[in-house]
Amino acid sequence: MSGPVVTALGGGHGLAATLGALRFVTDEITAVVTVADDGGSSGRLREEFGVLPPGDLRMALAALCSDSEWGHTWRDVLQHRFAGEGPLGGHALGNLLIVALWELHDDPVAGLDLVGRLLQARGRVLPMAAVPLDIEADVSGLGSGGLTTVRGQAEVAVTPGTVEEVRLVPADPPAYPESVAAIRSADWVVLGPGSWFTSVMTHLLVPEVREALEVSRARRLLVLNLDPGSGETAGFDAVRHLESFAALAPGLRLDGVLADPAAVDDEAGLTAAAARLGAELHVVPVSTRSAPGQHDPLRYAAALRDILYSPRPTP
Amino acid sequence: MSGPVVTALGGGHGLAATLGALRFVTDEITAVVTVADDGGSSGRLREEFGVLPPGDLRMALAALCSDSEWGHTWRDVLQHRFAGEGPLGGHALGNLLIVALWELHDDPVAGLDLVGRLLQARGRVLPMAAVPLDIEADVSGLGSGGLTTVRGQAEVAVTPGTVEEVRLVPADPPAYPESVAAIRSADWVVLGPGSWFTSVMTHLLVPEVREALEVSRARRLLVLNLDPGSGETAGFDAVRHLESFAALAPGLRLDGVLADPAAVDDEAGLTAAAARLGAELHVVPVSTRSAPGQHDPLRYAAALRDILYSPRPTP
Repeated sequence: MSGPVVTALGGGHGLAATLGALRFVTDEITAVVTVADDGGSSGRLREEFGVLPPGDLRMALAALCSDSEWGHTWRDVLQHRFAGEGPLGGHALGNLLIVALWELHDDPVAGLDLVGRLLQARGRVLPMAAVPLDIEADVSGLGSGGLTTVRGQAEVAVTPGTVEEVRLVPADPPAYPESVAAIRSADWVVLGPGSWFTSVMTHLLVPEVREALEVSRARRLLVLNLDPGSGETAGFDAVRHLESFAALAPGLRLDGVLADPAAVDDEAGLTAAAARLGAELHVVPVSTRSAPGQHDPLRYAAALRDILYSPRPTP
Repeated sequence: MSGPVVTALGGGHGLAATLGALRFVTDEITAVVTVADDGGSSGRLREEFGVLPPGDLRMALAALCSDSEWGHTWRDVLQHRFAGEGPLGGHALGNLLIVALWELHDDPVAGLDLVGRLLQARGRVLPMAAVPLDIEADVSGLGSGGLTTVRGQAEVAVTPGTVEEVRLVPADPPAYPESVAAIRSADWVVLGPGSWFTSVMTHLLVPEVREALEVSRARRLLVLNLDPGSGETAGFDAVRHLESFAALAPGLRLDGVLADPAAVDDEAGLTAAAARLGAELHVVPVSTRSAPGQHDPLRYAAALRDILYSPRPTP
């Protein structure tokens, strides 16, 4: 198949949805995955071993597994979570495998590549930064009248308040050369969908990643969430999502914005907001009919294909 | 290569040494592994999930891994133990993988076969019984003047007393049909070396396994330990090892007994003891020169080849 060289930035289920759709569109896929998760199995592994949180990396690898009996078998094994409330309960086997590989090999990227070989993955999965990160947010509306600092991805993701500003701790984490190179050498960079401040916008907060985005010749596509006003962006409409992008990465231009019709209440306003970032707005149905909160892999793939295969506009 | 069909019974490092040597001798290898371990990582997993102890199964699979970069890489991953004293500290990754497969699949044998496929293993690894077992021993010399009941493989293996009798709890555990069939259809069954009462003689205590040994046309080789008088058999000479075999499996005949010269202090006595069981004694050096307590894979392979390829005596 080959196809355009695509680097997808994000984390969690949103990134997995993008990767699951990109499989239908191109063979040249790299995922650059946030490493700020501090909840669940990943949070416990960070605490026990001081490692990068493996969960989002595992999900991205699983999404890229080969479409074969072997690939599906090992995907299911890596995604399996131990039952019960004991010391292992809730841990995903793939998280434990990744941590074991990190203990065995000095190079975390080599460990992830080996999991990719096991899954016969079509593409590569890389961490956004070389050290575990924490997310810190200034949140309004928590009752104190002013801003409250909320720390940790797990906490920020469920805050009932409004996220006004978000930071990484440490603020200037090192990135992997492979991740920077994947952004610089891509034809397209796809950012989102996903937990907006804790999985998607995080990438803009890593200086080396933002610089790579600025100097790359890659065209840039921002994918909005199916339900923009849920979770940590409660009360946000689609336009406000674009404004938060502009606030975090001033001067960074976009080429496209992809939104499901259900997420757009003011198409003219969103078109204008996209245009202010240099982007064309694509309003295309990408959700499943039976579960409108989930991406339909084939519809999402069709939408991505139409955008990613479009000719580069002549300047 | 092909070669004779060999089923090896045992557990732990002793069985792994046999399998590591058999690799050089034949392609037709099945290991039937004790499932009475209750210490370390396996003991913790038994406690948390009520599963068969996976550790000895993992070691046997690792010993059969393909002699390739892929096989060695995954062998090292499965053998890797997590560092530290936390909830995961000391667990071998391969043990966790096996337990995950057992949670995912109804059939424990299918899970072990999948690990074998991952390692491109030359041979198959099966459990001795279908339920986790406990070992219970009557031990003399513990100061009370009479017999003391010691329970648990980990405890029995390090008892400073003398093991007078050993039992399984439950006493009549079910076996897997695959394990019974592997014993019945083999050309040779190799029993030992290893922790004598807790890894080797255990197989004779499983009724279905003992029956399979009795009715099989397979020739039977008993391999004595390099240092017969250490651990749970402190004070036992080689002859007493054969006597304990005869006591646990009255009427079961042997075809060969293999012993390293260092383990034989009375060759005439041992020859006679072997002959009483129907067996020819083979005294052959099988230990490494630099570490006499360890089997040398090539010397052990040579000794096994000479025995396993010998013509069946005409009756």
